[in-house]
Amino acid sequence: MDNVLVKYIKEPKPVNPVLIEGLPGVGNVGKLAADHLIDETGAEKIAEIYSKHFPPQVVVEDNGVIKQVNNELYYLKKPESIILAGDYQGLTPEGQYELADVVLSIAEKFAVKKIFTLGGYGLGRMIKRHRVLGAATNEELVKEMKKYGVVFPKGEPGSGIIGASGLLLGMGMLRGMDGVCLMGETSGYFVDPKAARAVLEILTRILGIKIDFSKLDEKAAAIERIALRMKEMEKQEIKRKREDLGYIG
Amino acid sequence: MDNVLVKYIKEPKPVNPVLIEGLPGVGNVGKLAADHLIDETGAEKIAEIYSKHFPPQVVVEDNGVIKQVNNELYYLKKPESIILAGDYQGLTPEGQYELADVVLSIAEKFAVKKIFTLGGYGLGRMIKRHRVLGAATNEELVKEMKKYGVVFPKGEPGSGIIGASGLLLGMGMLRGMDGVCLMGETSGYFVDPKAARAVLEILTRILGIKIDFSKLDEKAAAIERIALRMKEMEKQEIKRKREDLGYIG
Amino acid sequence: MDNVLVKYIKEPKPVNPVLIEGLPGVGNVGKLAADHLIDETGAEKIAEIYSKHFPPQVVVEDNGVIKQVNNELYYLKKPESIILAGDYQGLTPEGQYELADVVLSIAEKFAVKKIFTLGGYGLGRMIKRHRVLGAATNEELVKEMKKYGVVFPKGEPGSGIIGASGLLLGMGMLRGMDGVCLMGETSGYFVDPKAARAVLEILTRILGIKIDFSKLDEKAAAIERIALRMKEMEKQEIKRKREDLGYIG
Amino acid sequence: MDNVLVKYIKEPKPVNPVLIEGLPGVGNVGKLAADHLIDETGAEKIAEIYSKHFPPQVVVEDNGVIKQVNNELYYLKKPESIILAGDYQGLTPEGQYELADVVLSIAEKFAVKKIFTLGGYGLGRMIKRHRVLGAATNEELVKEMKKYGVVFPKGEPGSGIIGASGLLLGMGMLRGMDGVCLMGETSGYFVDPKAARAVLEILTRILGIKIDFSKLDEKAAAIERIALRMKEMEKQEIKRKREDLGYIG
Repeated sequence: MDNVLVKYIKEPKPVNPVLIEGLPGVGNVGKLAADHLIDETGAEKIAEIYSKHFPPQVVVEDNGVIKQVNNELYYLKKPESIILAGDYQGLTPEGQYELADVVLSIAEKFAVKKIFTLGGYGLGRMIKRHRVLGAATNEELVKEMKKYGVVFPKGEPGSGIIGASGLLLGMGMLRGMDGVCLMGETSGYFVDPKAARAVLEILTRILGIKIDFSKLDEKAAAIERIALRMKEMEKQEIKRKREDLGYIG
Repeated sequence: MDNVLVKYIKEPKPVNPVLIEGLPGVGNVGKLAADHLIDETGAEKIAEIYSKHFPPQVVVEDNGVIKQVNNELYYLKKPESIILAGDYQGLTPEGQYELADVVLSIAEKFAVKKIFTLGGYGLGRMIKRHRVLGAATNEELVKEMKKYGVVFPKGEPGSGIIGASGLLLGMGMLRGMDGVCLMGETSGYFVDPKAARAVLEILTRILGIKIDFSKLDEKAAAIERIALRMKEMEKQEIKRKREDLGYIG
Repeated sequence: MDNVLVKYIKEPKPVNPVLIEGLPGVGNVGKLAADHLIDETGAEKIAEIYSKHFPPQVVVEDNGVIKQVNNELYYLKKPESIILAGDYQGLTPEGQYELADVVLSIAEKFAVKKIFTLGGYGLGRMIKRHRVLGAATNEELVKEMKKYGVVFPKGEPGSGIIGASGLLLGMGMLRGMDGVCLMGETSGYFVDPKAARAVLEILTRILGIKIDFSKLDEKAAAIERIALRMKEMEKQEIKRKREDLGYIG
Repeated sequence: MDNVLVKYIKEPKPVNPVLIEGLPGVGNVGKLAADHLIDETGAEKIAEIYSKHFPPQVVVEDNGVIKQVNNELYYLKKPESIILAGDYQGLTPEGQYELADVVLSIAEKFAVKKIFTLGGYGLGRMIKRHRVLGAATNEELVKEMKKYGVVFPKGEPGSGIIGASGLLLGMGMLRGMDGVCLMGETSGYFVDPKAARAVLEILTRILGIKIDFSKLDEKAAAIERIALRMKEMEKQEIKRKREDLGYIG
């Protein structure tokens, strides 16, 4: 068995499409963004990527039917894009490199010249505004991205970019591909649809398309309700403890 | 040395057999079930699978003779089945994938069309009834399994199916094989022959055969005795401590 | 670079020699025994085995000169034997299998028919007598070994034999080689030259040779002195504490 | 994708150059030394080494432009030297061996006959003097190095030399290359430019060149300021606590 197995469903012939990556990671920002983009644009699945670098696992859908964990490629016609989405990133460094290498080979095959990788930038504290940080393969792209509202604070992200979002750009550079990483600021405590929206707002402006964000907003509202309920439960807990003490006292 | 080494002992020519897998896992349910099925049906060993993905270890039998740890394939004539049993699963994700791949290649060679994987579903609490949960490669199989008493609670197993029981189905699907995972509910605290019996009761009904369960029941009784003795010792311990306190008091 | 690299120094043409393995492990019994056997018989080095499965490390000798960590093969003329000694065992399960495979290929090349692997059997408690436990590839060998005083207690070693001592026998069996593992009982707390002597006493009787044990006895005495000194220091400590208390009291 | 990918920028034709290695490690001594040597001599980059044995990561420079993590080779004309510098060492033992093997193949290609590896020797306590410890591939080199002030204390380093600094010498020996490891004594608590300077002072004497150390001294001063500030903050903390107690008392 090959380390990575690509199963093509359709083989479109795009002309210089962009590659957009959104896989699980900090705040699941990248995955939320890519999945939402696929849903809203009706991009169609063109390939499935299976690999021994993913967990040895199947997921069970609500109807009792299983699905082998994988990554998937979707094709969007306008503007021509290949979108990479999926359940997992490679489990090991070697796996990450091999998967990035396969994706870049597919990208070359589809004549991809530019890559957008989407992710979250964890701040470790609650935030109000969701800025979008950037990193790019050259200074012209940095300049261009600034026009779209992407920020490039000096010294951030200090630890670099780890995983597929970094590797596709870094290893893509070696193949002559340009690229940008868009990182939505997030607390990193929850999955963060708001950070995903911030990233998508900028990406869709770059791509020159408009999409509906209501489903992402619903997810954000649902998560906020959960967060609120948790806070409420905490308060109740404190209140009850005080009452108990009052009773005793 | 190949990563996986298959040593054939016999090469039967079955016509569309099923593949049945039962390897170590939660409550050892799968292994107990497969081993019992082999013992009771007199299925004969046809192949041994050695691999660097198993622990670097030999077991020592009671007569002082060693045996390299492995997986083994057995052949059952009625109904035609290949049964996969063994000491261990692959130690790493990559190992799991490679072993599943080899087993599926053997299954293809023997013209296997359907796979049954057996395992346990750990609940983390003591249980009275041992339901059998299912997951399958398509909705028709889900429907069919429900007739045999297999349950498919929505959202379970939430974490998917990890290891050989999941992978053989998931990777088997990619080769066009159908399959079902039968998971016996178990506390997960002990090896659980009762859960294995629950799984086998359904599997034998599906296969249309009858087997004796007395040895599995004996094992269940033995484990119950051990559990009881442990409880008893705990009680004694508490009692003794009380008496000590009484003496002091 | 190959995963395992064998550098031959001499290539003797032995006729049906035995292979003797003694690598680091529980109480370092196997290594102590093999190293002592090499020293006392004047066996000469015939090959060095380097591998990426060993630690990425050099040792520095007392004269400041480095040596890449490795395993080494020695050749003994009477009775014809190949002795495997070394600094380390493979770091991973895969590494253990690959190294055992290479050693067995060399053994086949030298027409080895029988393997003796030497190791320790850790009891987790201080012991007076150092019995030698055995495990073998067939019942005839078990019987034969009993004559030499090797014991085969039912159910021991319960966890099987892990590492090179097990693997060389288990994987050797698949190549048609017979073999015995001799395990010297040891507390497992210290390196144990006494257990190594017990193992060598039996092995040399089997091989029909006599060797001097005085250097091994010196090592045993040195370790006993260290153990005694540690005990003494502990007692002093307790005594001082009591005196302190007396002063306070 | 190959496990290691070498991208040549220039291909000089040196005559018997030396190879100098300085990668991250204890006190970052080796990396500091190699980077400083490159900066001060104006050695030019001739190759980049990418590998799946490095972290799957890009670094982001201050201008927002990314760079795939790698190792790099520099070429110095006088005296002819190839200098190996980089962000990371291989993450796994196998990776360490593969990377060392690739570097040694490049060294052979450039007709390298002698290797200098630079590192730190962590003492686990603050030190005043920064001695340079050595280890070499033969006794003549040990003698020669002693003339330059390198010390070879018996039994040190007791644990051998781990990583690229050891492996390049150990595996280089197998290819007939001579070599020396120069280890600057360091506390191991901080990155240690002083230890790097001590190592470079000896190396440049061996190479017969002179370089400016002021930038390394600046770094040392900066780190000393940080260490002082930390000490000061600790003292303040203790003082404040005492005052608090005084207030209470």
